[in-house]
Amino acid sequence: MSGRLYGVGLGPGDPELVTLKAARLIGAARVIAYPTLAGAESFARRIAAGLIAPDVREIVMDVPMVVERGPAQAAYDAGAEAIAEALAAGEDVVCLCEGDPFFYGSFMYLFARLEGRFAVEIVPGVTSVSASSARARLPLVARNERLEVIPGPLPEAEMAARIAAADSVAIMKVGRHLAKIRAVLAGLGLEGRAVYVERATLPEEVVVPLCDAPETAPYFSMILVRKGNDPWL
Amino acid sequence: MSGRLYGVGLGPGDPELVTLKAARLIGAARVIAYPTLAGAESFARRIAAGLIAPDVREIVMDVPMVVERGPAQAAYDAGAEAIAEALAAGEDVVCLCEGDPFFYGSFMYLFARLEGRFAVEIVPGVTSVSASSARARLPLVARNERLEVIPGPLPEAEMAARIAAADSVAIMKVGRHLAKIRAVLAGLGLEGRAVYVERATLPEEVVVPLCDAPETAPYFSMILVRKGNDPWL
Ligand SMILES: C[S@@+](CC[C@H](N)C(=O)[O-])C[C@H]1O[C@@H](n2cnc3c(N)ncnc32)[C@H](O)[C@@H]1O
Ligand SMILES: C[S@@+](CC[C@H](N)C(=O)[O-])C[C@H]1O[C@@H](n2cnc3c(N)ncnc32)[C@H](O)[C@@H]1O
Repeated sequence: MSGRLYGVGLGPGDPELVTLKAARLIGAARVIAYPTLAGAESFARRIAAGLIAPDVREIVMDVPMVVERGPAQAAYDAGAEAIAEALAAGEDVVCLCEGDPFFYGSFMYLFARLEGRFAVEIVPGVTSVSASSARARLPLVARNERLEVIPGPLPEAEMAARIAAADSVAIMKVGRHLAKIRAVLAGLGLEGRAVYVERATLPEEVVVPLCDAPETAPYFSMILVRKGNDPWL
Repeated sequence: MSGRLYGVGLGPGDPELVTLKAARLIGAARVIAYPTLAGAESFARRIAAGLIAPDVREIVMDVPMVVERGPAQAAYDAGAEAIAEALAAGEDVVCLCEGDPFFYGSFMYLFARLEGRFAVEIVPGVTSVSASSARARLPLVARNERLEVIPGPLPEAEMAARIAAADSVAIMKVGRHLAKIRAVLAGLGLEGRAVYVERATLPEEVVVPLCDAPETAPYFSMILVRKGNDPWL
C-alpha cells in the first residue's frame, strides 16, 4: 500500500494560526517535505517547527531564484521523485505550505506532478490576505462587494484598471514593485485608503498606512485597499 | 478593567479546520456570541460545539431575513449592547464567525459598533474559498494570476464582465442565483471549467462539475472557475 501525500496549509506565520488538522498531521508525520528559495530558511518549516517530531525525515527542494523556469522545474521534478519514493515505500508525506496550499502556493507544482499516481489530500490554511485584513483591522468585503486579488508584478496599466474596477483589493508579492504600486494608487486617488502589511502575525509584523510604509518592501508584504464606504452599520 | 472582544474565525465547517488559537479562545470563553438567521441553527456554533465549555453564557443575535436593513441593524444594535455590557463588566466575549470574520462575515457589524469603545481582536480563519478549492482539487491562483471574488447577486452583465477579465473566479452566495450564474458562464464558454461546491468539508459536502450540479443550490455553496492553462509544471 502506497502512502498518502498531504499538502498542509500552515497559515500566515503565527504558529497558533495552524489548524487542528494541520497540527495533528505534522505531529504524526515521519516524512515532511518543503521547498526552500535559493538556500534561504523555509518560512513554512519555521511556522511548523514546534510541531515536528524528532527524527523526522526531511525532503528539501531547493528552488533557485532565476528568471528562466527550467531550474525551478528541475528542482520540483527531483523533489517530486524523492516524495514518490517515500510514498511508494508506504510512507505518508506531509508537505509544509505557508498560508493556503492552493493560493499562490508552490504545493501546486508537486500536486501537478504526483496527483493521479498517489492519493493526495489538500488541507486548506488561513491565507495571508485574511491575516493581513485582521491585523490591519480592515474588513475586506461585505454584502455584495467584490474582491480583487492581484500580484505586484502586474504591468502598471493593467494594475490600475483592475484596482479601478474593484471594491476591495489585495496586492500580493509587493517586494520591489512597491514604487509602481504607490504610483498606481496615487493616480487613482486611493493612496490614502491603502494599508501596508509586512509579515502579518509574526513578531516582526509591520502594519501602517501606505504613506508611512518603508521605501523598500520585503517579499512577505502586501497592500490592502478598501474603497467602499462602510455598509455594515 | 473591561474585557476584550474576540472575533474568531472558525473555518468552513470541519471542526478540525479551526485554528489552535480559535480552539484555545473558545475553550477558555465564559461568554460567547453569535448571530442566527431568522431563528435557524447557527452554523458557526455548530462548528465550535465540541470546544465550548459547559455553563457558558451565550449572547444570540437573531437577524430577521427581510429586504429592508432596519430590522437587521436593530438586531446587531441590541447584540452589540448585550456584548458591551459583558465587556464593561470585565468579561471577555468570543464571537463565533464561520470562515474568516472579515471576509463577508457578519462580525464586521459588531466590529463597527464596538471598536474604539473596547479592545477588539480579530482572529483570522480558513475561508470557504480556500476550503472549496482544496476539496475541488482545483489550484486557485499561481504565479502572476489574478483572482476575482464576486457575490452571486451581482447583476448579469456586470458578473459577465468581471468573470471575463479574471484568471480565476470564486462566486459566493450562489443560492437562488444559480440559473443566472450558469447562463453567464455558458455565455462566456466557461461552463465546462466551472466546479460547484456545496458545504465544503462537511459530511454533506457536494463537489461536482457545474454541469452536474443540482437545479437549486443552498446558501452554503459556491462556484469556482479556473480559466488559466496550468502554468505550474
Ligand atoms: C507565494 S505567495 C504565498 C501565499 C500563501 N500561500 C497564502 O495563502 O497567503 C507569497 C506572498 O504572500 C504574501 N504573504 C505571505 N505571508 C505573508 C504575511 N505573513 N504577511 C504579509 N504578506 C504575506 C506576500 O504578498 C507574499 O509575497
Ligand atoms: C456570508 S458568506 C461568509 C463567508 C465566510 N466568512 C468565509 O470566510 O468563507 C457565506 C457564503 O460563503 C460561502 N460558504 C461558506 N461556507 C461554505 C462551505 N462550507 N462550502 C461552500 N461555500 C461556503 C457560500 O458561498 C455562502 O453563501
